[in-house]
Amino acid sequence: MMLCDVGNTNYTFYSSDGVFRKFVEYFDASTIKEEVFYICVNPLIKQHLRELDNWIDISSRVDMSKYYPTMGIDRIMVSEAINDGVVIDAGSAITLDIVENGVYKGGFIYPGKRAMHKAYESISPLLAYSFNFELDLDKMPKNSEDAISYGFIKPLYSEAMSHKKQIYLCGGDALEFSKIFKDAIVDDELVFRGMKKFIKGSIC
Amino acid sequence: MMLCDVGNTNYTFYSSDGVFRKFVEYFDASTIKEEVFYICVNPLIKQHLRELDNWIDISSRVDMSKYYPTMGIDRIMVSEAINDGVVIDAGSAITLDIVENGVYKGGFIYPGKRAMHKAYESISPLLAYSFNFELDLDKMPKNSEDAISYGFIKPLYSEAMSHKKQIYLCGGDALEFSKIFKDAIVDDELVFRGMKKFIKGSIC
Repeated sequence: MMLCDVGNTNYTFYSSDGVFRKFVEYFDASTIKEEVFYICVNPLIKQHLRELDNWIDISSRVDMSKYYPTMGIDRIMVSEAINDGVVIDAGSAITLDIVENGVYKGGFIYPGKRAMHKAYESISPLLAYSFNFELDLDKMPKNSEDAISYGFIKPLYSEAMSHKKQIYLCGGDALEFSKIFKDAIVDDELVFRGMKKFIKGSIC
Repeated sequence: MMLCDVGNTNYTFYSSDGVFRKFVEYFDASTIKEEVFYICVNPLIKQHLRELDNWIDISSRVDMSKYYPTMGIDRIMVSEAINDGVVIDAGSAITLDIVENGVYKGGFIYPGKRAMHKAYESISPLLAYSFNFELDLDKMPKNSEDAISYGFIKPLYSEAMSHKKQIYLCGGDALEFSKIFKDAIVDDELVFRGMKKFIKGSIC
């Protein structure tokens, strides 16, 4: 039995062998013959996976009264995985969700690293710098490269820290963000911890 | 005599008749026969304007030791216009700069409304909401539209407010941002107030 978190960029699989990723563009889900319990935020892929008997969508098992109807199922799963804290899932999008004593309090969506880089580039090629996650956020920038990195990272940091809770980091860019959120718990298996709550007799 | 702030989207003119804008894509600068004192952040347009005798670039008049070499000349001018405060210029890019007792302290660049909308859209068409500037930023969002608006606006707000200074708003989206920054001074002529400091005998 495997678990799979299907995002906009990757299929991320979890089994007793560990975690591995496949690009959504190139991967053919029908090549997997095992039973796969999955969640999926991409409507087109979801439609395709419905046709595969061994791929089981667990999203219908969630008590949606705790969340809101259009909330991404990946955000729900990482929120289910913690009891109290701020969970930042840094992928194509960066989602920040707050859980307090097991109750979901709300959250927001910020563009991920790649989308934000393209946003700066779309304004002017002069702003197409790579982000520097080693930046000192206590100093206001005095060069263009830092002015871009600070603009992407510091507003998110200020907002996240204002909630004064333990921060959990997951997603493809979690390690980079852990350079900024120095006291965060980095847990790349957070989404799967949430998913396991909805699979009876999980053997993963 | 006229002043002109050439951005990535608009030529913004200022004269005794008031302020008016022309799209950079369609406007032919050689149709202006008066003397124009200008600043320009777009390298291609700057090259073109150099060929026009009545267009006078004032950027070389700035004491750059107060700033940094690659800093946008528009950011320098709005910073010159104030003595103490946070100046947010909300255009194609949103720049936030800090001046303390007449000394420039640094600043950063955040994507503007349009670039940020495209950033969300590039992640998923499901995230392509318009931004709601009437959003209550004291509540964590519990629907997708608010999760996007909050993600764009609140991190910027948290960071700007953390500096505990008077906020000045200018640029094309200043009025929308004034719904969020309720105590801000909205001043669409800020860049021109800065420019006037570098034009002797200004009659504007």
